[in-house]
Amino acid sequence: MKTLPPGSTIGIFGSGQLGRMLAMAAARLGLKVHIYSDVSGPACEVAATVTIAPYENRTALRKFAQSVDIVTYEFENVPLEAATFAAELVPSSPTPKALEVAQDRLVEKTFISQLGIAVAPFAAVSKTEDFAPAIAATGLPARLKTRRLGYDGKGQVRIATKADLAKAFDELKGAPAILEGHIEFTTEISVLALRDCMGAFACYDVAENNHKNGILDTSTVPANVSQDVVADAQSIARRIGEALDYVGLLAVELFVVLEDNRHRLVVNEIAPRVHNSGHWTLDACQCCQFENHIRAVAGWPLGAASRHSNARMINLIGHDIDEWQAYAATPAASLHHYGKGDVRAGRKMGHVTQLSPLRPRNTRKT
Amino acid sequence: MKTLPPGSTIGIFGSGQLGRMLAMAAARLGLKVHIYSDVSGPACEVAATVTIAPYENRTALRKFAQSVDIVTYEFENVPLEAATFAAELVPSSPTPKALEVAQDRLVEKTFISQLGIAVAPFAAVSKTEDFAPAIAATGLPARLKTRRLGYDGKGQVRIATKADLAKAFDELKGAPAILEGHIEFTTEISVLALRDCMGAFACYDVAENNHKNGILDTSTVPANVSQDVVADAQSIARRIGEALDYVGLLAVELFVVLEDNRHRLVVNEIAPRVHNSGHWTLDACQCCQFENHIRAVAGWPLGAASRHSNARMINLIGHDIDEWQAYAATPAASLHHYGKGDVRAGRKMGHVTQLSPLRPRNTRKT
Repeated sequence: MKTLPPGSTIGIFGSGQLGRMLAMAAARLGLKVHIYSDVSGPACEVAATVTIAPYENRTALRKFAQSVDIVTYEFENVPLEAATFAAELVPSSPTPKALEVAQDRLVEKTFISQLGIAVAPFAAVSKTEDFAPAIAATGLPARLKTRRLGYDGKGQVRIATKADLAKAFDELKGAPAILEGHIEFTTEISVLALRDCMGAFACYDVAENNHKNGILDTSTVPANVSQDVVADAQSIARRIGEALDYVGLLAVELFVVLEDNRHRLVVNEIAPRVHNSGHWTLDACQCCQFENHIRAVAGWPLGAASRHSNARMINLIGHDIDEWQAYAATPAASLHHYGKGDVRAGRKMGHVTQLSPLRPRNTRKT
Repeated sequence: MKTLPPGSTIGIFGSGQLGRMLAMAAARLGLKVHIYSDVSGPACEVAATVTIAPYENRTALRKFAQSVDIVTYEFENVPLEAATFAAELVPSSPTPKALEVAQDRLVEKTFISQLGIAVAPFAAVSKTEDFAPAIAATGLPARLKTRRLGYDGKGQVRIATKADLAKAFDELKGAPAILEGHIEFTTEISVLALRDCMGAFACYDVAENNHKNGILDTSTVPANVSQDVVADAQSIARRIGEALDYVGLLAVELFVVLEDNRHRLVVNEIAPRVHNSGHWTLDACQCCQFENHIRAVAGWPLGAASRHSNARMINLIGHDIDEWQAYAATPAASLHHYGKGDVRAGRKMGHVTQLSPLRPRNTRKT
């Protein structure tokens, strides 16, 4: 991978807020952005070039791929055929392999557990005969999830009995599913890991995440976990990144489980892209996750991932955004509004970062 | 002035790097940007809408003004007729009055001195008969400057004798000029002052500036000046801002003069726009000068102008930009590349901000 000089063009699949923040990071470095999406989203307003076309349109895909110097993704559910088609015409970072792993919960969990990294007990559920062995493998309660296209808690049902499973599976109308065992955790955390094209590895500090209705609500940095947990979580992210020969920002969500007064880490899921739990890096770090992703995919060295402040990111979901004036008037808060016109329940409309001076926060020893 | 909600459109006259950074700041707040310029510059790549037309094109100006919710400027030399024409159709912040003052060195110096604020001794030079009284007013050495359209040291000549003045004036071919007396200063500083539409006032910390060949080379914060100098400089900026009923970011450049072991401040010039000596605020402050200018003109409350770090901004002028890879590989440096394709001597191509932990720097008592 050669270093792409300023003036080069980064192709991005997807036009949402992550693409918007990637486009602005690219512009800071003098790189141009070409957005490809099947819908016109907030990234289009800050991109030098935009293509709106179906992901199945080979003519549009070819023209896009030939107009850019490298392709990356703002979401992991870019149709694999489109990503693979583009990757045959132009370098792509991360490679479609990372998308393939992250698009299917069964493939993802199998891949991670084969690295010797703990995940929740899981079993494929594709027919009625799978119910009993799946429950035997995961225990109850558990969650039935679609293998594909689930995000922000969509496509998930809590399962307490075998009858729940039969009903939930029926409602999926034949979509392949996975049953995942319940994990009793003390803390949810995420690692935002970076690998450049030479294999150099770096991490932002670990974030502590809280979800509400299956959607990320807040991320707080530093996480209230011990330094051992931070080191173990970062080491897990590094092993996953290396196994994928990953280039760019890789997000790894983990559960911290306390057993016999010792911690154990269980990977929940990975995202081969910039991640909502890393938005605080925009305001609290010298080089944010968006710039570092662009740097990595453009073949640049990584920027400093160090923090200058403590931070708490609050997602503004749906009508939370109606409070924008109150946040705009709060001196210690940085408001980020994604410019989406249509307010819908569950839709990510913006976020706020509250900064405070650097100080340790971990009260936990294990 | 009502508060413009996200989704509103800010019209910006000018398409250079200042417009580019303003457009990105607006996008963070969910505001759209419409750039109007007679040339396509780096701001166009990150703006939702762009109009490229002469500043004399009334049809294009009217369409622009009617498509935006408010107009602002990225440079003070927007032709006054265009700014005034637009201001009759749509609110403008700052008002064309601020442009009028800043566009003409004679008007500017007269305006500031009438506020009781010190400027260098000056005199208008528009004909041969002005030479002797002008030199009597300013002393020698002095500088002959065009009253209009000078920036980055352009249109300035050092004058040591009356013969120098005759020669320099002759070379201006009748352009109205001003003779300014020489100021022996210890330090050049600038204040980046903010006023919102309710009259609330705030300042970034004072920057210490060094020029090379008449162009800003570095800005360092904090400046190596006493707290009295900081307070006096900020008070001067406030008086100028109030006299102009200014809304937005106003830059005031000053000389610190040491006389009898006491400091005295002399205003060099003002800029009714975001300013090169405030680029460090992008990396060292919670809310940068670009976002705060947009906040003020959109009728939002000001964001926090406090610093979380010490900073040194280095301009990359002309072929300085060829060192971009070295800066990109320096972890403590934030590189900003303006994406200009054509490298020319004296052209501002980008800048670098070096951050270091907060600590005082003033060793001077006066």
